[in-house]
Amino acid sequence: MSRPLELHEDRLFPAEPEVRALARELYATVAQLPIISPHGHTDPEWFARNEPFGNASELLLHPDHYVFRMLYSQGIALEDLGIAGSNADPRASWRIYAENYHLFRATPSRTWLDWVFSEAFGLDVRLDAGTADLYFDTITEKLQTPEFRPRALFDRYGIEVLATTEGPLDTLEHHAAIRASDWNGRVITAYRPDAVVDPEFEGFVHNLAQLGELTGEDTMTWPGYLAAHRQRRRFFAEMGATSSDHGHPTAATANLSSAEAQALFDRVKTGTGSSADAELFRAQMLTEMAAMSVDDGLVMQIHPGSLRNHNRQLFERFGRDKGADIPTRTDYVQALQPLLDRFGNEANLSIILFTLDESSYARELAPLAGHYPCLKLGPAWWFHDSPEGMRRFRQMTTETAGFYNTVGFNDDTRAFLSIPARHDVARRIDCGFLAQLVVEHRLEDWEAAELAPELAYGLAKRAYRL
Amino acid sequence: MSRPLELHEDRLFPAEPEVRALARELYATVAQLPIISPHGHTDPEWFARNEPFGNASELLLHPDHYVFRMLYSQGIALEDLGIAGSNADPRASWRIYAENYHLFRATPSRTWLDWVFSEAFGLDVRLDAGTADLYFDTITEKLQTPEFRPRALFDRYGIEVLATTEGPLDTLEHHAAIRASDWNGRVITAYRPDAVVDPEFEGFVHNLAQLGELTGEDTMTWPGYLAAHRQRRRFFAEMGATSSDHGHPTAATANLSSAEAQALFDRVKTGTGSSADAELFRAQMLTEMAAMSVDDGLVMQIHPGSLRNHNRQLFERFGRDKGADIPTRTDYVQALQPLLDRFGNEANLSIILFTLDESSYARELAPLAGHYPCLKLGPAWWFHDSPEGMRRFRQMTTETAGFYNTVGFNDDTRAFLSIPARHDVARRIDCGFLAQLVVEHRLEDWEAAELAPELAYGLAKRAYRL
Amino acid sequence: MSRPLELHEDRLFPAEPEVRALARELYATVAQLPIISPHGHTDPEWFARNEPFGNASELLLHPDHYVFRMLYSQGIALEDLGIAGSNADPRASWRIYAENYHLFRATPSRTWLDWVFSEAFGLDVRLDAGTADLYFDTITEKLQTPEFRPRALFDRYGIEVLATTEGPLDTLEHHAAIRASDWNGRVITAYRPDAVVDPEFEGFVHNLAQLGELTGEDTMTWPGYLAAHRQRRRFFAEMGATSSDHGHPTAATANLSSAEAQALFDRVKTGTGSSADAELFRAQMLTEMAAMSVDDGLVMQIHPGSLRNHNRQLFERFGRDKGADIPTRTDYVQALQPLLDRFGNEANLSIILFTLDESSYARELAPLAGHYPCLKLGPAWWFHDSPEGMRRFRQMTTETAGFYNTVGFNDDTRAFLSIPARHDVARRIDCGFLAQLVVEHRLEDWEAAELAPELAYGLAKRAYRL
Repeated sequence: MSRPLELHEDRLFPAEPEVRALARELYATVAQLPIISPHGHTDPEWFARNEPFGNASELLLHPDHYVFRMLYSQGIALEDLGIAGSNADPRASWRIYAENYHLFRATPSRTWLDWVFSEAFGLDVRLDAGTADLYFDTITEKLQTPEFRPRALFDRYGIEVLATTEGPLDTLEHHAAIRASDWNGRVITAYRPDAVVDPEFEGFVHNLAQLGELTGEDTMTWPGYLAAHRQRRRFFAEMGATSSDHGHPTAATANLSSAEAQALFDRVKTGTGSSADAELFRAQMLTEMAAMSVDDGLVMQIHPGSLRNHNRQLFERFGRDKGADIPTRTDYVQALQPLLDRFGNEANLSIILFTLDESSYARELAPLAGHYPCLKLGPAWWFHDSPEGMRRFRQMTTETAGFYNTVGFNDDTRAFLSIPARHDVARRIDCGFLAQLVVEHRLEDWEAAELAPELAYGLAKRAYRL
Repeated sequence: MSRPLELHEDRLFPAEPEVRALARELYATVAQLPIISPHGHTDPEWFARNEPFGNASELLLHPDHYVFRMLYSQGIALEDLGIAGSNADPRASWRIYAENYHLFRATPSRTWLDWVFSEAFGLDVRLDAGTADLYFDTITEKLQTPEFRPRALFDRYGIEVLATTEGPLDTLEHHAAIRASDWNGRVITAYRPDAVVDPEFEGFVHNLAQLGELTGEDTMTWPGYLAAHRQRRRFFAEMGATSSDHGHPTAATANLSSAEAQALFDRVKTGTGSSADAELFRAQMLTEMAAMSVDDGLVMQIHPGSLRNHNRQLFERFGRDKGADIPTRTDYVQALQPLLDRFGNEANLSIILFTLDESSYARELAPLAGHYPCLKLGPAWWFHDSPEGMRRFRQMTTETAGFYNTVGFNDDTRAFLSIPARHDVARRIDCGFLAQLVVEHRLEDWEAAELAPELAYGLAKRAYRL
Repeated sequence: MSRPLELHEDRLFPAEPEVRALARELYATVAQLPIISPHGHTDPEWFARNEPFGNASELLLHPDHYVFRMLYSQGIALEDLGIAGSNADPRASWRIYAENYHLFRATPSRTWLDWVFSEAFGLDVRLDAGTADLYFDTITEKLQTPEFRPRALFDRYGIEVLATTEGPLDTLEHHAAIRASDWNGRVITAYRPDAVVDPEFEGFVHNLAQLGELTGEDTMTWPGYLAAHRQRRRFFAEMGATSSDHGHPTAATANLSSAEAQALFDRVKTGTGSSADAELFRAQMLTEMAAMSVDDGLVMQIHPGSLRNHNRQLFERFGRDKGADIPTRTDYVQALQPLLDRFGNEANLSIILFTLDESSYARELAPLAGHYPCLKLGPAWWFHDSPEGMRRFRQMTTETAGFYNTVGFNDDTRAFLSIPARHDVARRIDCGFLAQLVVEHRLEDWEAAELAPELAYGLAKRAYRL
């Protein structure tokens, strides 16, 4: 009595038949293009060691906060799902998940997961209470085969380059191991300095000291601290990094004099600065990072606007990344001005802006990116990495910023198998958007044919200097 | 020369034929489901006394601020419409309305009213200057017949349950009369304590005293004041209430210590507190109400973000609810944190959030409801209770919160006959949305068939514990 | 090998065939209606002198900040485009533009420009590197013919009335010359007092003195300053003006006592007031202008929310209007209250509100315009004067404000030939919107037929009292 699972070839294309037919044609030209994944959170150790993933829950439930936050919202305890080191039986957790799979109807998680179930694991019935064990067994068994080891999956899905994200204190040993191996998959890192840039980060003072040890610089002085960043950025670049990444609560930047910056650093370095000091220091560091990017060429990504760990009880019990990061209203126009006053007209600088506040798309981000040489727009992000979210992104940014001030898609995921699934969604939605423009005679068909591979592949490769 | 009035069977369904056909099929399965109306502002006296409504203007023009605000915006005096006790001749007012009915083109009021004219009163020509008298006479005459008495209409439109809204000082005598009568229509109340919770409410100090008399509690003390609330909530629950309702200017909550709350209460209870005290007291009271809900199980509704009585001249002349309540930007993420710090993980607590600020749908409300066990999303509200508004609600919330963190439709109206009209609109729009998902292969047809009655009936019934 | 350029007769209509067919029918009834252009920035000297435009770059590149900001955003130097007095060869600039014309794909600039190329200049191949010279020569040659002189183009495109925008210090000599000529094109002015109303405007103190000289009033006193405004407004009205225009950073209004206003004026008139004084003075002046409008009948336009000259380096090198004006979040509900407290219920006052912050459409502007007799909504503006922008405007305002609280289209452009192109886009999008409503049975076909010419022509004419 189980329901069939079949991915329809026209999924995610617009309903109108003429638009759909053209979307299908465009998609056919990009479906098999290699995947450029320039921003994400997969674990490089997977590719360094190439060990099999453990079981269905370990691969598809435990690391996916999109999934378990939804189950949690309906009253299911995280302990029962095996989150954060609870000893729940993986099969029992999987059954709970299966029984509640209807909660994901019309969500992007459901779209990605069905793709993984069908395309990666060959399942042809739908996940529900009745098929929970079939799923758990099938997936878990396949994971033990050579075809499902990390490198094999990487190759199977045509990933041309995959960026992970590491902090300055990371030794990048897994990246070194990958480069030293005989496998030629391109897994690179990205420089994410929050732990030594954000005075409110757990262990900030200790982290500064560690950064000093690692670099031999005196990170208790402002010049030594900046030199340590420069050194680590150089090391990251040697290990393949082409970008840095900055996940601040706001987009605030500052442009302090050297003396002011020095004095501010002296206040925050001991952990005794105020909350306003912390915000100002993060702001100043965005501008410092931009200055370094002008020199070393790393592309700068700014990901603001998430209030992390909103659920304090949950944070105290389970730690970070448990699905309780909530977006907030985010200003860009005033916030970025200090940085742009200094570097806005640098044609060699490349800053990619993201947002969780869609009201800024047409009002702030598209006008900024449609003017400043250094600015480009990242794709629909996180909660908005979804069919409706991507459509709104295109509808609200294209008319002012055009396509060429955007940077293609990136998946930003820690759920490895969702990478090809997510790129597939993005390609389908973008082809649908282009087809709509053609049928409304706002774009020529040959232009759409040129743009489709740019949106799927070319823009990301160039924007991230890959 | 009058124009025909006919409700098209496909109204409000999407234009694309395949989507439309499926929307029609889905709608057929829910069109006749009973109406759950868990939040609204009809007058319980109607059902207690079951007297006939007076005339067309009294039923369809005077109580409907959606209607007369639009006429007022075009320079028509409220006095000429018979609003707020003016002695305008009802037929003359109706004629003005009829002559200006074109102002409502493409508004939801027009959709609801045409439904009422056609479906309830059997009119088959359109309202305009030429048919004004025909309308006035037909409607007024029918209202004198038994079939148009309040209880008969309630039964005719298949209302399973209808909630009104009353303040703590209300004796609920009409609800008592309904329960004591031989009619078995289910008309329940909801606990809306603004008059004794908001220090800026007209007569707040007097209201506190009255609450003391009514309950026998010493409402000049903080514990006595809270005990009085508990007692009235219990009484409301006995009279059928399953929910409370909170219409604050903002969504601010607070989590003060008992001593701080006591001190704050002492400042506001005499009417001498500052405006900041008033805001903090309202904020603290949301958290207190949540605490009571954990105990007594009343579902909590938070309706923030309307700046009431924006037009001061009008307010001074005509009083409240004259169409001059204007939405404002509303923050939820910071505002709700104090309450959520205390009760966010209570699976037994149920808080339904509404908004007039659509920019919060995808950015704040869906992420919050998609994580916290105690939170759910109310439907598109007030200015957004409309075809476009409902579509935006589904498009912007479903991907993050899913369908099951929403609570179905509610009409929130004081215009009795618009209740079935509004539910019909919601059912049509939701079926159109589901059909769109199916045709785009984002949802299976059998899933849409399961979801349609949930959105029309099941979710509301369960969310409001009816 | 060049690509053909052909304007499709169905461009910008929705894709669904039934909707499209109806849109086409509605459009046919309005396509040839005269153009009402009640707000814009063309140069009256063109029509006074009726000299030929110089060359392609001078007409279509140099004055169009929509165009050169996009080129600039991709690293092209403004000097190479001949902007702001650089001596770049116009043909060389045109070639750069042509080579980069793909940047404009799916932008409104592309739609307008293709219309101009095809419809005005008869070009039948697309602009690209290979056709750059053909374009430059064809356009430049035609510009030297009598048919392409300003008055001939004005007549050819059926412009019934065109408003320019001038400051109080302008002598309006070009308008006088037009009126004195034998040409009967109606070119009127609009009163834009920023230079003598905004204490932060370049040369404000000097401007005040000049205003005194021009009017014979003592503009160093508050009564004299107001009298000078009244006098200039009267003069502007004599030269055809029916409106004033106010481009403040915010929508703030104030309602100071006469003594407070006097004291504030004394602080700002010497250029020594604070930034808060400047904001308060602008705010008070909106209310003073409303008071004058009540007397003299000029329609008041409020255009807030643009942070001008965001790129400081560029501003210092090239001056104003170089594509670096960036929208900001804009509040209307609190901001307008002081003015509305005083004049909100004046049925003779007409205030047209614009926004660059689309989040205010449904939340603030439609509810305000749907209530206050004095308020109406201007069309989708600037960055939102685009197909998607116009659709969002209609979708987010119509249900609450209706059509009759809107004022038709205006082009707000300094690019003369884009005027007919922009009106054509607006007419097509509005007809598509109406057609969609009809096919979804939310509007009758005969109502759409009545509304189409209102949106294209009638509403603008009446709202601006033309």
